[in-house]
Amino acid sequence: MKVVIIGGGAGGLSTASNIRKYDEDIEITVITRDTNIAYSPCAIPYVLSGDVECFDDIIMHKPKDYLDKNIKILTETEVCAVNHDKKILKYSSIKEDENIDDEITYDKLVIATGGSPFVPPMEGTNLDGVFKIRTINDGREILKWAEKSNSAIVAGAGLIGLEIAYGLKKMGLEVTVSEMLPQIVPRSLDPGMAKIIQSYMEDKGINVVLGKPIEKIGGETKVESAVFGDEVIPTDMIILATGVRPEVNLAKMIGCDLGRWAIKVNEYMQTSVPDVYAVGDCVEAYDAFTGLHAQSPLGSTAVRQAKVAAKTIVGIKSKFNPILNAMVSKIGKLEFGAVGLTRAAAMQNKMNVVTGKKRALTKARYYPGAKPIDVKMICDIDGKILGCQIVAEERVAERIDTMALAIAKELTCDELANMEFSYAPPVSMVIDPIILAAEDAQENLNKLTN
Amino acid sequence: MKVVIIGGGAGGLSTASNIRKYDEDIEITVITRDTNIAYSPCAIPYVLSGDVECFDDIIMHKPKDYLDKNIKILTETEVCAVNHDKKILKYSSIKEDENIDDEITYDKLVIATGGSPFVPPMEGTNLDGVFKIRTINDGREILKWAEKSNSAIVAGAGLIGLEIAYGLKKMGLEVTVSEMLPQIVPRSLDPGMAKIIQSYMEDKGINVVLGKPIEKIGGETKVESAVFGDEVIPTDMIILATGVRPEVNLAKMIGCDLGRWAIKVNEYMQTSVPDVYAVGDCVEAYDAFTGLHAQSPLGSTAVRQAKVAAKTIVGIKSKFNPILNAMVSKIGKLEFGAVGLTRAAAMQNKMNVVTGKKRALTKARYYPGAKPIDVKMICDIDGKILGCQIVAEERVAERIDTMALAIAKELTCDELANMEFSYAPPVSMVIDPIILAAEDAQENLNKLTN
Repeated sequence: MKVVIIGGGAGGLSTASNIRKYDEDIEITVITRDTNIAYSPCAIPYVLSGDVECFDDIIMHKPKDYLDKNIKILTETEVCAVNHDKKILKYSSIKEDENIDDEITYDKLVIATGGSPFVPPMEGTNLDGVFKIRTINDGREILKWAEKSNSAIVAGAGLIGLEIAYGLKKMGLEVTVSEMLPQIVPRSLDPGMAKIIQSYMEDKGINVVLGKPIEKIGGETKVESAVFGDEVIPTDMIILATGVRPEVNLAKMIGCDLGRWAIKVNEYMQTSVPDVYAVGDCVEAYDAFTGLHAQSPLGSTAVRQAKVAAKTIVGIKSKFNPILNAMVSKIGKLEFGAVGLTRAAAMQNKMNVVTGKKRALTKARYYPGAKPIDVKMICDIDGKILGCQIVAEERVAERIDTMALAIAKELTCDELANMEFSYAPPVSMVIDPIILAAEDAQENLNKLTN
Repeated sequence: MKVVIIGGGAGGLSTASNIRKYDEDIEITVITRDTNIAYSPCAIPYVLSGDVECFDDIIMHKPKDYLDKNIKILTETEVCAVNHDKKILKYSSIKEDENIDDEITYDKLVIATGGSPFVPPMEGTNLDGVFKIRTINDGREILKWAEKSNSAIVAGAGLIGLEIAYGLKKMGLEVTVSEMLPQIVPRSLDPGMAKIIQSYMEDKGINVVLGKPIEKIGGETKVESAVFGDEVIPTDMIILATGVRPEVNLAKMIGCDLGRWAIKVNEYMQTSVPDVYAVGDCVEAYDAFTGLHAQSPLGSTAVRQAKVAAKTIVGIKSKFNPILNAMVSKIGKLEFGAVGLTRAAAMQNKMNVVTGKKRALTKARYYPGAKPIDVKMICDIDGKILGCQIVAEERVAERIDTMALAIAKELTCDELANMEFSYAPPVSMVIDPIILAAEDAQENLNKLTN
């Protein structure tokens, strides 16, 4: 069997590796427009902040590593045409010094074309000093420009926006983050939890502008300012962290059905066209709570989808489940994460909810280095846990994973409060903060029903 | 209603606090022989190691704090007699300067008498320089003696034994840990995982003697040596960390049924005698896997039992579930934890098992400070997860909690491998190490069944 995979990001390459893991004989070719493969775009901010030394560090594999596994990688290569009836794909090199036009036949095609940064429709986005943030090359250009700049505005206060803002601040720039919604991380956090992170960023000297979109970017050839209503903030550079738009052109060309905004796939990662699969940022996921279309442009989602696609291709039964939106990030010393529905999202979906909240500690109270930890839990009125948000300077990610499992298994706050957890003074409290938050939810639920 | 609680440890005091949380009017009296209350015995090793500054730090509350909640505490007080038919209890002070003999009536009695250190039957345990480790006063005496000593032997390589050994080593003593079984932490870890911790301790200069019990302690009035078969190790002090024996005398006096070795309670923490409850190290728990009697002498278990006892007393329905044996410890920089059955315990119970193992990293590979993490997972031949053991320099405790939840909800390794977890380069790998271990178990299972 011959499999051709379009895209060299986490989705494409994990599909390739997984197919090889299950089958030694399948011919696998990966085609990507990018110069580099197998890097972690979510690590770009940490190169700016200096936590990771250089961009080369975040490239985890070279094409040669894949060749060793008998996976062929064509970089800087573009798909020109696909004749899916005959299962022939034409491609050509976009390298300056090469003039290759060739074709390849396949039995199965995997679309892992990812997404492209969403550029808000406004004046000035084409000026020098305005950057998108997606590829490692975007990262290198931002770094180069930032090194000669004094100030920057980051448009969009989602994860990548905040992480980039912190990275630029650590480089020594005056940094403003702007968000059109009235809070940061609006997708994953409720306002009160978002406020903790906002305060932390403001303490680090980052300016946060909420509730105002950038309306216009000012400048002649080079960016000079951003206009927010009647306010004009001068700046040397603007980074657009305003979301990802799924790259669906190839899928359309082949005739794959699209959903609301991305390629429609079933739980086996099959598109509507037989023998065409799709994974990663270019596909639509489904929300575990609402059943609705959802975007999940995360490396971890792509990797999990890739495993399912690979298994389906080699004939092992496997399913991709609706998503819980588990996320975590680290800004400076502060970790924050969330999974499931926010209170706001639950209300929007007309669900009746109660919340539990607790500020506790990450270690026993007397143990040096114990840090405050804030936990918010959202439950429906039967007590079933719908979501959880956590902020602390340590030990957030794994608690989010515990909560992801609790939500996936439909635990009530009551059941969670009765769970047996581990304890030792240097690593936890005798009652874990998530248990304390579950108890608080329980009590609020009792007040409601009594 | 009047409740009298015997014992001022985690079990007794949590019962008191929980009753007060649910009911403002119940009269609550706690009677304890100890001078101090509400301290964390599991923190004693961390005072020796210097991680926690002094013993006073680990006392979390004073009797006055409880009086503020209208809970009366009688310290250094002994129960002399109980007439449970009339529900009258006689007590007397054991303070040197007091001569109080009094009685108190009650409606409900809670036995939280804890355990006493098990002293192996051998010659020399009464010599000066031989210590048990249980109360804060034991800790103070060990510290005082260690300050003028050059060498120590710790008998017993369970958690507390290893933690004490590390603490004494950090004080500058020559330290030997001896264990009669052929590995350290035999209760919670399989040999291979135990070996990682043993190597870490040996690297720190701690001598580990396995497979040989101490047969005799040598010395005239003061300890001089320990005898292991034909080997004699000279030493200035010996700490017996050889387990806990439940304190059941009071329960026997009242006529409560005992189980195999401790007070028998039902899932509501009720003893066989009406209106008598028991919690903590003095009661017998049940193992979630084997259904058999199990000891769970952990502060976290006592606290969870206390919550159930308090709820039962005030009339809120609540149950204490069979135990999963979730544990975690930290020796120096190394964290290790376990939950559920070891492979060895599963085999002893004649279960057919497969294991999954993975050595991975605690952060993205390129992220500075990523540490190795070892995960071992034990599954039955239907893939149901029975146990998990984890060793790493960070982020172990919460993963153990995730696994506790996975085991409680009877997940298979297949289901776990499909779980959605959070990801960010500074705090995790794109596929979590426990997912990788679950995948390994899955593959081993496939090999077995194909």
